[in-house]
Amino acid sequence: MNATGVTLMESLFPALHIAPLHLNHLHAAQAHLDNLTKPRGSLGRLESLASRLYAMAEGRTPLNVSPSIMLTVAGDHGVAAQHVSPYPQAVTRQMVQNFLHEGAAINALCRVSGMDLRIVDAGCCGGPFPHNPMLIDRRLGNGTADLSQEAAMSRATCLAGLHAGIQLAQELADEGYRCIGTGEMGIANSTSATALYCALLAQDPADMTGPGAGADTAMLHHKIAVVRRALTVHANALNGDVIDVLAALGGFEIVMMAGIMLGAASRRIPVLVDGFICSAAFVAALTLCPALEGYAILAHASAEPGHIRALDTLHCNRESAIPLLHLGMHLGEGTGCAVAYHLLRCSAAIFNDMATFTSAGVADTSC
Amino acid sequence: MNATGVTLMESLFPALHIAPLHLNHLHAAQAHLDNLTKPRGSLGRLESLASRLYAMAEGRTPLNVSPSIMLTVAGDHGVAAQHVSPYPQAVTRQMVQNFLHEGAAINALCRVSGMDLRIVDAGCCGGPFPHNPMLIDRRLGNGTADLSQEAAMSRATCLAGLHAGIQLAQELADEGYRCIGTGEMGIANSTSATALYCALLAQDPADMTGPGAGADTAMLHHKIAVVRRALTVHANALNGDVIDVLAALGGFEIVMMAGIMLGAASRRIPVLVDGFICSAAFVAALTLCPALEGYAILAHASAEPGHIRALDTLHCNRESAIPLLHLGMHLGEGTGCAVAYHLLRCSAAIFNDMATFTSAGVADTSC
Repeated sequence: MNATGVTLMESLFPALHIAPLHLNHLHAAQAHLDNLTKPRGSLGRLESLASRLYAMAEGRTPLNVSPSIMLTVAGDHGVAAQHVSPYPQAVTRQMVQNFLHEGAAINALCRVSGMDLRIVDAGCCGGPFPHNPMLIDRRLGNGTADLSQEAAMSRATCLAGLHAGIQLAQELADEGYRCIGTGEMGIANSTSATALYCALLAQDPADMTGPGAGADTAMLHHKIAVVRRALTVHANALNGDVIDVLAALGGFEIVMMAGIMLGAASRRIPVLVDGFICSAAFVAALTLCPALEGYAILAHASAEPGHIRALDTLHCNRESAIPLLHLGMHLGEGTGCAVAYHLLRCSAAIFNDMATFTSAGVADTSC
Repeated sequence: MNATGVTLMESLFPALHIAPLHLNHLHAAQAHLDNLTKPRGSLGRLESLASRLYAMAEGRTPLNVSPSIMLTVAGDHGVAAQHVSPYPQAVTRQMVQNFLHEGAAINALCRVSGMDLRIVDAGCCGGPFPHNPMLIDRRLGNGTADLSQEAAMSRATCLAGLHAGIQLAQELADEGYRCIGTGEMGIANSTSATALYCALLAQDPADMTGPGAGADTAMLHHKIAVVRRALTVHANALNGDVIDVLAALGGFEIVMMAGIMLGAASRRIPVLVDGFICSAAFVAALTLCPALEGYAILAHASAEPGHIRALDTLHCNRESAIPLLHLGMHLGEGTGCAVAYHLLRCSAAIFNDMATFTSAGVADTSC
């Protein structure tokens, strides 16, 4: 908050309103759940998820998370030039083409999970892709600059990316989507995410850096050094606000995902957060707007070792900060969200469809 | 194995053949997965699940886990007379009626997860239920005897229950079901399950007894004493074979579920194992037939504290003995299976539908 009492978010996005979930709604939801034919609390995290969905909907029932849409946001990273990934930068573009041809994991998982899928080009190298109904063009540039040498992008581009993400999520909510998943593709983006975690959560690069898409030990040590250098190069920016940090160390897809999360929350619909890279976008968006916590659902704990470490440092409600799934996945693309989306459907179903002890004529001596 | 080289299972069920998953199939599946457009191993447990499905299918593709069916097996327990549950015994029957009226958690979760649901009456008190298309009558009696005083059932009844479960699963597989889920309902059955774990896994009742459907501290201590008494009363049976142990301490639904698991494995289809009670049936069935391990998929870690403790003692492949979901659920009915079934669908989808690096034209420098 500045001297006039206006928060950074209010000054940057005056039209964006994100209210924390209301405790009254959370309590009313739990009271309903306690009245259903099951021992109290026996559906565990499905119950707390259902309560959050009820509070997001401000008490409107039935709870509804369909239709849902996955936004897999792709962008290239100048820091790929530092050889921080075993894959060449061209793979970002090749994988976007694979998405558009329905050949990737996220295609298979969205199909089986009942999520629509759109690929957002936030700025892949090689220029715009040919028109495709699955593609959404929100290009912020032709790949970021090398964050180990200079700012990944300007502050203006970063704000434009956040704004584009917010707008996109709001448009999709206004079209009727009741849940948005976030995912990413971008060779070298685990380096960007690691640098963001270190800057925003005061972590050391040696603790936060992991193999990403498959760095070996030598590459891992090099990656730590690259992150460390980036933090030194951007020491000034790191004393600025979260936008300065995002512009210095972020990626186009990371900025866009942060915006998407904020936009979804502003329309009071749940937004699923994927693994290591997505969660860096989440941490940045949460820094800007703590009320996002209620709407963001951490889909899975990545096998990337820094992921849980980063989440452990957040001052969130325990329920919000522990991912739903622990399956050793570390693919990105939004694959964890596509799997976890089913848990939201399950939560809504138990809340909507179960009988009460009274209606079913079942004795409830646990009261 | 007895002196003639015949195992207990071969002597009891000579027509039942359950072969361990073949390593060649597991390796071939992983080779296929490693060729798909993703970093190797990056889909974590979805990959090991897919490999198991491939081995169950003996290499036939596409992998297919649909249609699937949940069998929620209900039975009453004489030990309910010892006041080991906060709910009266009548709730078993009331909940079966709730299942048949589509009001329970398992109804909501099967519907949203795309599983058919049948309720198996393995022996509820109060006699047979009126005919209902959702109900399968496999009654072994009118509730078990009080296991803290006498054997829950005779050895002959136990064998008949196992046989009925085996046959039921085989019939469903032969009808075309490609996955079976197991669940249970039975007031006081966590006492039976606890006693079985203690007997089969050499655990102490104080370590294995939990609150079940909601016992308070006083009831918990009483429950420990009841289990301890049962283990003393049945000291002779506990020196016998696993059938003697099951007959002394089991429940009709537990015996039936153990049979269902064996029957599913004999038809080489996956069987989902729910939480604390179901896993006791699994441990008994595994004792009878170690090859079951490959086909049984532990759906979720129950909040019941003895569950993970029991699973930790099994000499299974780590991948088989760690449940898929950790959501703090402890409801029973098969609810964990209904949620986890989606992970099987996801595993099959990635195995079947993803492009290879070559077919997608994506560089694979991770080789």
